[in-house]
Amino acid sequence: MISVTEARKFILQNTQDFGTEEVPFLQSVGRILKEDILADRDFPPFNRVAMDGIAINYRFFNEGIRNFKIAGIQPAGSKQETMKDASNCYEVMTGAVLPNNCDTVIRYEDVTINNGIATINVDKLNEGQNIHTKAKDGSLGDVLIKKNTLISAAEIGVFATVGKTTVKVAKLPKVMIVSTGDELVGVEENPEAHQIRRSNVFTLVSLLQKLNIPSETAHITDDKSILKQKIASFLQEFDVLLFSGAVSKGKFDYLPEIFEELKVEKLFHKVTQRPGKPFWFGREASLGISERNGAASPKNNKTIVFAFPGNPISTYVNCLVYFYEWYHKSVGIDYKSQTAILSEDVNFRPNLTYFLQVKLFNENGILKATPIKGNGSGDLASLVHADGFIELPKTEELVFKKGNVFPVISYR
Amino acid sequence: MISVTEARKFILQNTQDFGTEEVPFLQSVGRILKEDILADRDFPPFNRVAMDGIAINYRFFNEGIRNFKIAGIQPAGSKQETMKDASNCYEVMTGAVLPNNCDTVIRYEDVTINNGIATINVDKLNEGQNIHTKAKDGSLGDVLIKKNTLISAAEIGVFATVGKTTVKVAKLPKVMIVSTGDELVGVEENPEAHQIRRSNVFTLVSLLQKLNIPSETAHITDDKSILKQKIASFLQEFDVLLFSGAVSKGKFDYLPEIFEELKVEKLFHKVTQRPGKPFWFGREASLGISERNGAASPKNNKTIVFAFPGNPISTYVNCLVYFYEWYHKSVGIDYKSQTAILSEDVNFRPNLTYFLQVKLFNENGILKATPIKGNGSGDLASLVHADGFIELPKTEELVFKKGNVFPVISYR
Repeated sequence: MISVTEARKFILQNTQDFGTEEVPFLQSVGRILKEDILADRDFPPFNRVAMDGIAINYRFFNEGIRNFKIAGIQPAGSKQETMKDASNCYEVMTGAVLPNNCDTVIRYEDVTINNGIATINVDKLNEGQNIHTKAKDGSLGDVLIKKNTLISAAEIGVFATVGKTTVKVAKLPKVMIVSTGDELVGVEENPEAHQIRRSNVFTLVSLLQKLNIPSETAHITDDKSILKQKIASFLQEFDVLLFSGAVSKGKFDYLPEIFEELKVEKLFHKVTQRPGKPFWFGREASLGISERNGAASPKNNKTIVFAFPGNPISTYVNCLVYFYEWYHKSVGIDYKSQTAILSEDVNFRPNLTYFLQVKLFNENGILKATPIKGNGSGDLASLVHADGFIELPKTEELVFKKGNVFPVISYR
Repeated sequence: MISVTEARKFILQNTQDFGTEEVPFLQSVGRILKEDILADRDFPPFNRVAMDGIAINYRFFNEGIRNFKIAGIQPAGSKQETMKDASNCYEVMTGAVLPNNCDTVIRYEDVTINNGIATINVDKLNEGQNIHTKAKDGSLGDVLIKKNTLISAAEIGVFATVGKTTVKVAKLPKVMIVSTGDELVGVEENPEAHQIRRSNVFTLVSLLQKLNIPSETAHITDDKSILKQKIASFLQEFDVLLFSGAVSKGKFDYLPEIFEELKVEKLFHKVTQRPGKPFWFGREASLGISERNGAASPKNNKTIVFAFPGNPISTYVNCLVYFYEWYHKSVGIDYKSQTAILSEDVNFRPNLTYFLQVKLFNENGILKATPIKGNGSGDLASLVHADGFIELPKTEELVFKKGNVFPVISYR
């Protein structure tokens, strides 16, 4: 039995490198960028007009001139014009190149136009105003986005701007999610009195989907030889296996011994936490299994095995706490842990780290966590009423006081 | 010109009802549930064993008996057994039905088993311990999840448990995103000196994708008759049109007059905010256009038009502020506005609502917003360095003080 801190350490020491792939830029949201994005030209690439209005040469305004003959129009998307007589003006549109010989833009709101003459109605101008000058935001070759960035809409805009039709991102791991337990029937079935429907694999699929990771699912009956045979084949094909159930002390909890027989090295079994204590974590000892079969291994990584206890809340919280952190570290993202303020006293006697379901509220910039009364680790419906888990440390004290700050993981 | 508050009011008065559809439950993450989810049986459906160990009848322990003959095993997934001699015990597995005549479970850790006799090694038991009693989490017919819930992994688990293979969710709006501006070329093209690549439509696509809304995109040249013809056809087909550009004072900013000619009622144009001031918002006056064409209308809603100014930051913030809120209200979700604490003084002279780019930090349960220096509404790359926008209200004051709380919208 190890502590949550030690469990985290083991998990972060056993990350994987999934490699990289090129994807169309618009499909890269939620993926992890694996290249620096450079400016392919200056930004803006030219002195860019930032207001609809007229462009002048400031010198003449400064000399007291207020009436400027309109010598032409510079629309956005047209080649740069040259204002031959610098005492004239040009009508200019937002996004246009500033015409040659102009250096200041006055918005239409401050101008009257009559018979081809623009009259400026303000007494003061700033030389160079309303111009977004060339290279102000960045110069050719500047790094606009760094490698190892989680891609959002903001990054998509920059990819488009610099002409990155495809971008290099971290490949996704191949994940198999397996449930065990003879009490489980399919979602479409009518369970008998002693049966329940499978649900943990689907919550796991959805939790992984939140990280943009697709996954496959399987259910295996509580028969040791069938379990062993299927797991051996999954080890050949997948980077990660997630299990729900069969890791505790039950007579049919075969997983730990099967892993041993299949040369999956146990890194730990059981963590001093509630819920989720019987969590088993390990790693394939070598890529040998597929080599023994004489086939080229379809994966580059030693398979990682997260075998979560089968109670719904146990599976759920362990995926959030351990798999999420492992995945972020694997793809090179700093996992920002959040914190929240406990809004009421919590009594907790066992000397275990307590992952307590909470509802999160943002009140005047302060994140408050209010405990949700659940009925233990089997109470799936209680997840619906919460937003996350607050992590109350393993301690001899019996009360966690209202107003104290603790780490929190939100799943919404 | 209206205020941000008034603009919000107009937008929320003009929501749409997209109707509902059934989708496979596992594809419903991120969608809005449009039915109550009821318990199809009690939860748990039986007195469920919550620990691997032995089950006894407490009366005998209470009478001082510590040795119990093992009369059988009750695995998870098997029909309920009956312990005929109530002074015996049964081995029971987590998830199993509690055998008849048993009322208390002792975990294996507290028991020694020898020659078919289980000896209990603890002096105190709680009658009924380690049993997750029938209906403790909910009874047949209870509402487990309410209509109008945003579906997360937690809800997926409940759908599976109650056998909802499909669920009723809000339909998604049909959205067309249109860019205008002759300076724009495709992402795959090499722009000439006076051109830039299209980017706003793609940031909008990505911002909508974050809400699970798919969208289509188009680019239309700055030619009034072509614009008008295309928009007329979009009005027939789409629930929502989002535009970027052509709503300000430029000579080629045709959109407002085209909307008028196409009987799209202007609800407002221009909001006292920075960036994003020239925002135009309107609604099709009737479903008449398609009716005039003699075709059955493919949509049930009067098309809503969000015409955002073309600067990248203006488009971005207006989509977050107005479209997001409009969408959430349309599908029946309470839009929880977040708040953050400003981490430094901000000087802002114009009497406008200021949407300022900020980096957000969670520090000891407190959400802090640090302003990001950008170069105005054209500076797309600055979005990469921020996480959201803080909303500083329109006021005569020139300084927003550090430590004050303001609404914030995060886009990460």
